[in-house]
Amino acid sequence: MSGGTALVQGASRGIGLQFCRYLVLSRYEINVIATCRNPEAATELQEFQREYPKALRIMKMDVTRGPDIQHTAEKVKEEFGSLDLLINSSAMLHPSGKGETSLREVTAEDLSLTIATNTIGPLMMAKYFAPLLLRGTGAFGAEASDKSRQHRAILVNMSAKVGSIEDNALGGWYSYRLSKAALNMVTKNLSIELGRGKNKVICVSLHPGSVDTNLSRPYHKNIQREKLFTTEQSVFCLMNIIETLNLDKTGKFFSWNGSELPW
Amino acid sequence: MSGGTALVQGASRGIGLQFCRYLVLSRYEINVIATCRNPEAATELQEFQREYPKALRIMKMDVTRGPDIQHTAEKVKEEFGSLDLLINSSAMLHPSGKGETSLREVTAEDLSLTIATNTIGPLMMAKYFAPLLLRGTGAFGAEASDKSRQHRAILVNMSAKVGSIEDNALGGWYSYRLSKAALNMVTKNLSIELGRGKNKVICVSLHPGSVDTNLSRPYHKNIQREKLFTTEQSVFCLMNIIETLNLDKTGKFFSWNGSELPW
Repeated sequence: MSGGTALVQGASRGIGLQFCRYLVLSRYEINVIATCRNPEAATELQEFQREYPKALRIMKMDVTRGPDIQHTAEKVKEEFGSLDLLINSSAMLHPSGKGETSLREVTAEDLSLTIATNTIGPLMMAKYFAPLLLRGTGAFGAEASDKSRQHRAILVNMSAKVGSIEDNALGGWYSYRLSKAALNMVTKNLSIELGRGKNKVICVSLHPGSVDTNLSRPYHKNIQREKLFTTEQSVFCLMNIIETLNLDKTGKFFSWNGSELPW
Repeated sequence: MSGGTALVQGASRGIGLQFCRYLVLSRYEINVIATCRNPEAATELQEFQREYPKALRIMKMDVTRGPDIQHTAEKVKEEFGSLDLLINSSAMLHPSGKGETSLREVTAEDLSLTIATNTIGPLMMAKYFAPLLLRGTGAFGAEASDKSRQHRAILVNMSAKVGSIEDNALGGWYSYRLSKAALNMVTKNLSIELGRGKNKVICVSLHPGSVDTNLSRPYHKNIQREKLFTTEQSVFCLMNIIETLNLDKTGKFFSWNGSELPW
């Protein structure tokens, strides 16, 4: 496969960084835009960019700042004209780095901060990048032969199984769980609004599995070693899902293995 | 039936006001605490309170202010010692009064304000009132004969069918929909945390149907007249659900007719 323009939001580390690597290495003539709050500190991303300066662009952007997102969308429009794949990847478990284990630990401020990054940020990304996605070339996913069922682009919200209300059996992690449940509603709403008319955008929520990242590391003592993914394994599986997406799959919530998760 | 202490948050009008009326009129020796942001402007509530000064207490409280909630919980504890029923009723459709019809109308500020009232407020209510609910007397709901399956109290989050991700077929109303999806996760999480141990609290989300209130009035031209409820009809149905709740029903999302809604 070759060509296409993809943007990975939250690309400084973890799954976002690995998405950039995978995309750059798996396609000829791809354009990948990597956004993060603080590129100066994103040393791994910078190193990789120096190896592939033509394929990878880094743009500084804070997903909690609307004007930042708008400015980035304008730059991407000027340079690339359209977008074929948008991956909203950044997330926080909790401002402290540890999810709440009981109501006593819940504060309105922590909830607001977590929702701003995990829910409102991805939605504002969709708002400002929708015009570019609607002009996409269908470079990613499984394009249908029937013209009326062809898609222009794909929008991926990195969600999490703990954001499934139905699947929730343990409780706790209030800020993270409710921010991801709300993000899943964002995905569903976007799939409807961007699935109308002639130019359609596929919108899905994806669960990366239990991956060894900064976000999840404090909790790994509870997970069997063989169940823990590297970011490479997770992104490999997630890209397999993305590359088989068509309009029948829009508005859904998929796990890393392709199975559909309940809301 | 007689006795019991209930608190209705967001009682100045609409469904919250009607819950107060129903509770006061349907039980002897009940204590109803009605909270609202601005009691001075809640003329109907005030009038009703003057008719039933013994049964109804009005307390000023803004659900977006943590210290307000904490102070109210302390007052309720001093005066009543425990709580048997908490109904989180206040909600906004959108700061403008009209839900977003497209992404273009979505702003981070409107999202934050709607989530603060519809999601974070009810969760902070749960945080500060949980100790009182855990000391409840089981005065509401269908108390089980088996002691190990008896509940202490009931917590109701007034949600809405448009907060169901699964049921969402129309899109739009971003702020409202995602705030209610997140509220449903709050309900599920609370049902787990407050369902542990000896003292159990039933937690549910309820959908009031299409009710004639200030929140929904701008949209009624799209609804057939016979499908529109008065607040009296809606609260009558909702109280029927509440009075038949037991621990088997905790952590679920019920419509006004008792049917279970998907998340």
